[in-house]
Amino acid sequence: MDIIAMRRDLHRHPEVGFTEFRTASIVVRRLESLGYEVHYGPEVMVAQERMGVPSDSELQAAYERALSEDANPAVLKKMQGGLTGIVATLAKGSKGEVMAVRFDMDALPVQESTSEHHRPAQLGFESQHPGQMHACGHDGHTSIGLAFAEKMVNTPFEGVLKLIFQPAEEGGRGAYAMVQAGVADDVDYFFGLHLGLDLPDGAVSGGTHEFLASTKMQAHFQGIAAHAAAAPEQGRNALLGAASALMNIHAVPRFSGGPTRVNVGMLHGGTAANIIAEQATMTLECRAESSDIHADLEHRVTSILEYSAKMHGLDLSITVTGKTIAAKCDDELVQIAMAEAQQVNGFTSVKPSHPLGASEDATFFMERVQNRGGKATYMVVGTPIPAPHHNPRFDIREDALERAVNVLERIALKLLSSKGK
Amino acid sequence: MDIIAMRRDLHRHPEVGFTEFRTASIVVRRLESLGYEVHYGPEVMVAQERMGVPSDSELQAAYERALSEDANPAVLKKMQGGLTGIVATLAKGSKGEVMAVRFDMDALPVQESTSEHHRPAQLGFESQHPGQMHACGHDGHTSIGLAFAEKMVNTPFEGVLKLIFQPAEEGGRGAYAMVQAGVADDVDYFFGLHLGLDLPDGAVSGGTHEFLASTKMQAHFQGIAAHAAAAPEQGRNALLGAASALMNIHAVPRFSGGPTRVNVGMLHGGTAANIIAEQATMTLECRAESSDIHADLEHRVTSILEYSAKMHGLDLSITVTGKTIAAKCDDELVQIAMAEAQQVNGFTSVKPSHPLGASEDATFFMERVQNRGGKATYMVVGTPIPAPHHNPRFDIREDALERAVNVLERIALKLLSSKGK
Amino acid sequence: MDIIAMRRDLHRHPEVGFTEFRTASIVVRRLESLGYEVHYGPEVMVAQERMGVPSDSELQAAYERALSEDANPAVLKKMQGGLTGIVATLAKGSKGEVMAVRFDMDALPVQESTSEHHRPAQLGFESQHPGQMHACGHDGHTSIGLAFAEKMVNTPFEGVLKLIFQPAEEGGRGAYAMVQAGVADDVDYFFGLHLGLDLPDGAVSGGTHEFLASTKMQAHFQGIAAHAAAAPEQGRNALLGAASALMNIHAVPRFSGGPTRVNVGMLHGGTAANIIAEQATMTLECRAESSDIHADLEHRVTSILEYSAKMHGLDLSITVTGKTIAAKCDDELVQIAMAEAQQVNGFTSVKPSHPLGASEDATFFMERVQNRGGKATYMVVGTPIPAPHHNPRFDIREDALERAVNVLERIALKLLSSKGK
Amino acid sequence: MDIIAMRRDLHRHPEVGFTEFRTASIVVRRLESLGYEVHYGPEVMVAQERMGVPSDSELQAAYERALSEDANPAVLKKMQGGLTGIVATLAKGSKGEVMAVRFDMDALPVQESTSEHHRPAQLGFESQHPGQMHACGHDGHTSIGLAFAEKMVNTPFEGVLKLIFQPAEEGGRGAYAMVQAGVADDVDYFFGLHLGLDLPDGAVSGGTHEFLASTKMQAHFQGIAAHAAAAPEQGRNALLGAASALMNIHAVPRFSGGPTRVNVGMLHGGTAANIIAEQATMTLECRAESSDIHADLEHRVTSILEYSAKMHGLDLSITVTGKTIAAKCDDELVQIAMAEAQQVNGFTSVKPSHPLGASEDATFFMERVQNRGGKATYMVVGTPIPAPHHNPRFDIREDALERAVNVLERIALKLLSSKGK
Repeated sequence: MDIIAMRRDLHRHPEVGFTEFRTASIVVRRLESLGYEVHYGPEVMVAQERMGVPSDSELQAAYERALSEDANPAVLKKMQGGLTGIVATLAKGSKGEVMAVRFDMDALPVQESTSEHHRPAQLGFESQHPGQMHACGHDGHTSIGLAFAEKMVNTPFEGVLKLIFQPAEEGGRGAYAMVQAGVADDVDYFFGLHLGLDLPDGAVSGGTHEFLASTKMQAHFQGIAAHAAAAPEQGRNALLGAASALMNIHAVPRFSGGPTRVNVGMLHGGTAANIIAEQATMTLECRAESSDIHADLEHRVTSILEYSAKMHGLDLSITVTGKTIAAKCDDELVQIAMAEAQQVNGFTSVKPSHPLGASEDATFFMERVQNRGGKATYMVVGTPIPAPHHNPRFDIREDALERAVNVLERIALKLLSSKGK
Repeated sequence: MDIIAMRRDLHRHPEVGFTEFRTASIVVRRLESLGYEVHYGPEVMVAQERMGVPSDSELQAAYERALSEDANPAVLKKMQGGLTGIVATLAKGSKGEVMAVRFDMDALPVQESTSEHHRPAQLGFESQHPGQMHACGHDGHTSIGLAFAEKMVNTPFEGVLKLIFQPAEEGGRGAYAMVQAGVADDVDYFFGLHLGLDLPDGAVSGGTHEFLASTKMQAHFQGIAAHAAAAPEQGRNALLGAASALMNIHAVPRFSGGPTRVNVGMLHGGTAANIIAEQATMTLECRAESSDIHADLEHRVTSILEYSAKMHGLDLSITVTGKTIAAKCDDELVQIAMAEAQQVNGFTSVKPSHPLGASEDATFFMERVQNRGGKATYMVVGTPIPAPHHNPRFDIREDALERAVNVLERIALKLLSSKGK
Repeated sequence: MDIIAMRRDLHRHPEVGFTEFRTASIVVRRLESLGYEVHYGPEVMVAQERMGVPSDSELQAAYERALSEDANPAVLKKMQGGLTGIVATLAKGSKGEVMAVRFDMDALPVQESTSEHHRPAQLGFESQHPGQMHACGHDGHTSIGLAFAEKMVNTPFEGVLKLIFQPAEEGGRGAYAMVQAGVADDVDYFFGLHLGLDLPDGAVSGGTHEFLASTKMQAHFQGIAAHAAAAPEQGRNALLGAASALMNIHAVPRFSGGPTRVNVGMLHGGTAANIIAEQATMTLECRAESSDIHADLEHRVTSILEYSAKMHGLDLSITVTGKTIAAKCDDELVQIAMAEAQQVNGFTSVKPSHPLGASEDATFFMERVQNRGGKATYMVVGTPIPAPHHNPRFDIREDALERAVNVLERIALKLLSSKGK
Repeated sequence: MDIIAMRRDLHRHPEVGFTEFRTASIVVRRLESLGYEVHYGPEVMVAQERMGVPSDSELQAAYERALSEDANPAVLKKMQGGLTGIVATLAKGSKGEVMAVRFDMDALPVQESTSEHHRPAQLGFESQHPGQMHACGHDGHTSIGLAFAEKMVNTPFEGVLKLIFQPAEEGGRGAYAMVQAGVADDVDYFFGLHLGLDLPDGAVSGGTHEFLASTKMQAHFQGIAAHAAAAPEQGRNALLGAASALMNIHAVPRFSGGPTRVNVGMLHGGTAANIIAEQATMTLECRAESSDIHADLEHRVTSILEYSAKMHGLDLSITVTGKTIAAKCDDELVQIAMAEAQQVNGFTSVKPSHPLGASEDATFFMERVQNRGGKATYMVVGTPIPAPHHNPRFDIREDALERAVNVLERIALKLLSSKGK
């Protein structure tokens, strides 16, 4: 497999969270052809545990687009409704330990740059899907996963290799549903990885810190409309409740234990100047570096929502549209990753940990594995990026892809060696 | 009795709500000497139903002042703790109907003017009690009550005359406790009256409208202190809860059914710039012209208090420190009052009703009497006032006092005539 | 002209404010054919003094719909951009006094009921324009105007009759631009009129009170976007400014001088949970019974908007999208209207004034006429209405139309009689 | 001098900021007797540059208490009005370099524990001044300063030793006024020091980090009173403005560049439930680790205060009652301090820097010295503390005092050696 050609094909066809129909179809078909045992769709995701699922019409449009782009209809059928997660296993030798690697597949709702200075545009592999773009490197992640899969077929090892291709990492929406389906329950060693993140070319980290626990929510305030001049008292003002919540949420205290964030990013409500607003919908998020602080913060935010609504006689419904947790990498795996990376051609700098300073739902896999006695880490593979992640001019340098494949192969050999541990 | 001398003596010795020890002592002794059956103290008030009672030290200081001003120690003893209400009855003939008149006795926490243009100061009968003043005419009301009592001793009638001398009308704090003691339960005809209220000299109204139902409250928010720099999250910020309540209370909607009022008049909280505020205390009131609207308004205000506290993890306690209700005067008594007033020398203008536009707790007596089948009204006796009620330069013209006594006498004769109805 | 057929035709083709192309085309052609001197479009409206003008695309769509419904292309051309106002005059005799009558033509953005109990639906003349409806009787007003115009052609009088057909009365958006064009500057007697308003069948009032001065506004807060986790301090939060404004606007005090209303009816802002909101747009209104109180109220509201924006480093722009003022009817015209109404068959009850309790921009005409020494009034013609104004089941009883024409004719004869005043 | 006896005497007589009359009198007299050139009062402080000065009556009461406690009347006279700062110099050899050490003298408004477990109480040297206590170790600092002064008299050195005894360090109120008087303008080496701060017994740091820039303010909102029922619109509601400011101040965003703090710690306003609040006074603070962030934060807070006031038609006055800045210790001095500390008997652990995590106005001296080319550091001398700083049971272990004197002496010898640098 030409890893660079694969990455460019995926880059041309970005698909946002839970609509990765074409991408997933390619992954399934290739892994099946390599001899992996492949499970996908409802087998590996609990549909109702997903968060922030697009509307039916959005799902349907993406589904049809994938069909028109030659995705496999039989594969797609099993993924209907956006169940685009895949788990593939390759077992060798007598029953051994399980090493899993997670690759995320989704793109972002960003319109890609067409500047001649933007390499994908210059070389003609820019996004063909208006308003969508692989602006976070997940095209690279998926390509690494496929190349790694191919490489391991002919590599002798003892144990089980488990490749997890996850939808909807952006916003923290897809991992939890896969974890709830039990896909991490038998994993002894778990790896996540990310390209870029301001780690320079040739650098690699065996672990990561500063995973921000985060929750994204939509809060809907339902009041009662009334004519604002004729009978204002007959209304229950949804905008008044929402504005009060907004003020108080932003006034949640700082935490001495570490940085926190809170933001009401959207508010939409009401119908006309002379009508007491019947409804208001608020989109918000909160984040913290530790799970304890995050839990406290989230509790305060939801309390404020609840009591702001009650205060104005409103009904409130809260939908969690995304969630990530904090995590810690296990030193045992960090050390192994560092040791193996040092053997890989092209890595010129190896460090134990890189700060993420952001949110990542691979942490749900990590937590599950660690809770069951396994080990987990999350590596970062450096590559120069001409613009920040999520920017219309984001790009990676493609030679990092092969380095990533190589280090994964070495780690797998180390952990799943015939000698055992 | 010289009604003007009495009014001036009371004016020199104003006593605020529930501290009317000297005033009440004078009333008790005089009514006893006239042959009335006089009950006072716990017999005529349910202590715990009073609202906004001064602190023990304030009560004690007023008690001692009254003793030093020659109040009767035996009378005072029965009024300890501020039970300064009095009910006196005079019965003539075989068992007849009961006519009651309410007179209020309390002064205001206002520092009286010493200007030479202020007649009490000019004539030397200004307040001798710093910071307290009869700035609402209750000195006149009490004097009218005593002169009326004297007059009725020698007037033949058939029935029971009941004179109610009430403490703490200001703020709506005293009437309810007397009503709860049952003092209005046998009343067939109830009269309240007030001097002034922008009704001109020589005018009188047989009834009153625009009694504002009102509630005064004190809300205490109890939070948790914490160092604002070292551990802000350990606090529960009482000021944040109180400020949020304040904003939302003022944002309660207008009512299409009639004017309402709401005000947070005081807020005190916190201890230092670098401490998360542990406590905050808010003093507020709401008012409406109808009892239904008032109930709705009060419910909204208390909901806001409750949920603002919960929103910030605070404990809340609300104390009602004053309350009045709305009321309607019975036309039957209004007509009688008007007819008799027209016979009284000095009344040059008689009208059925005058708008109060304020709150009055005589309404509790009115409600009780009306609920039991009796009739009630509230008269206003005009007199020129050089400054508004509650102002340091408030005063009345004393010739109105006798006119008020005369119209009450004629009404009593009419209602308690030997001929019956 | 069959007044009922005309009303039903207009009812079938409702056009909202500034899109009354078909309606105006009919009015222009008919008045021209009757021999009136007709001016319309930019001659009678100052385009930029209009408020709340629809978007270009909305205007264009309505324009084309009117063409497709056989409106006169030449007439429409002069009304391009929504200049749908018309002024027609008929002069008789030597130079005399000018009597003007205002008729409003616009419909509402309401979806008409198709219930069999709704008479227009039952008789098949319900709205053919989805989402638009004559739910306030302006179809009747326009029909009255046309029938009155026809009648006056053959009626002898001395003076000038001026018929003003106004667009966009709803929301108070059209009258001001016509007044600014000077169309009321020569008027000696001005009449507005309205059907319904809870005045019963057969009743009519010579005047109206409780015109609410009102202002509708749109406030736009422009901030700076920033990533809510990575650099919240680089943002300027438009939603925080808007929410603060909303809370404080609703907390504007009650006025003792009369009822007021204030409402933020819509708020839309922000783009995503993790972005500091860059913009927010608020739609609001305030109202009061007197112009003085309204001016004070509006000043407070705009101050709050301004300083809420500044507080958060935001730019603010306010657009007034509708405005009405308070007004008083002149007793001279009220008396004449009442006297003439008593002569009209079908009017069974005549009263001097009816409370509007709402806003009406005919008040701008009234003010201009009165300021220049003329007289003005606003009559209400009773008719039973099965549902309130602006309701999908609003309707009128059509026999009121002719009564309205008849009383206008009698008034015109009285005021523009050959004898003069 | 017995350093422990001195510390206990000062501990028995705590004096809060700008009232250190007795303490300063002792310091002046002793330094004069040792042969220092001593300047104090207006010579070393710009009176109007002080912040948070107590009221005249508080100053006067403390002054008289000091007199009654045998403070020197002549010395006190020069310190009238709270000018309690002192600067003493000792010069040896030909003109040399200047080394300055700052000692703070003020106590806290804390009621000291009388528990038998509290050593000062147990040994009988607890505070004799009700409500005041040396709960931050400044009694120790002053004692160290005096013992150090004594020691240096007999120690040979070349240069100028400058001892600065500063009032009102608590709240950041005194240093700035001394800096403005120029007392640091000739300083080449500046040292501050603090006991405790969770540094263990026997430990010492050559420098300090995490000095929080801070500003304490009092904001006064002046509105207009009005009767809340009779004419609410005539008021300008100071509590509404203050509550709005409070909400918005707490909602100031987090800064990505480092931790910040903001707190409205006190709010007092209004007079009665039925009066629109005429005034409100708010006490608040903000803090940040860097001066840039602090400047931005303070600007936002004052903007919110300003525009909240304007929004409600209020006048605002802001008084800065305390201020500190951030600072960095110079490595050159840190290294010298560490090297010398290692030679001092009793110091078992030496580290370059200890985090303060709090505010300290010695930073004003540091900034001035550094801006003029000098070097500065701030040392921490460990000692076990049974309760946190500012707690009623705070205490130090007195053997740390002598160690602190000894390290200062060694540093002075090093810097002011006859060999020069």
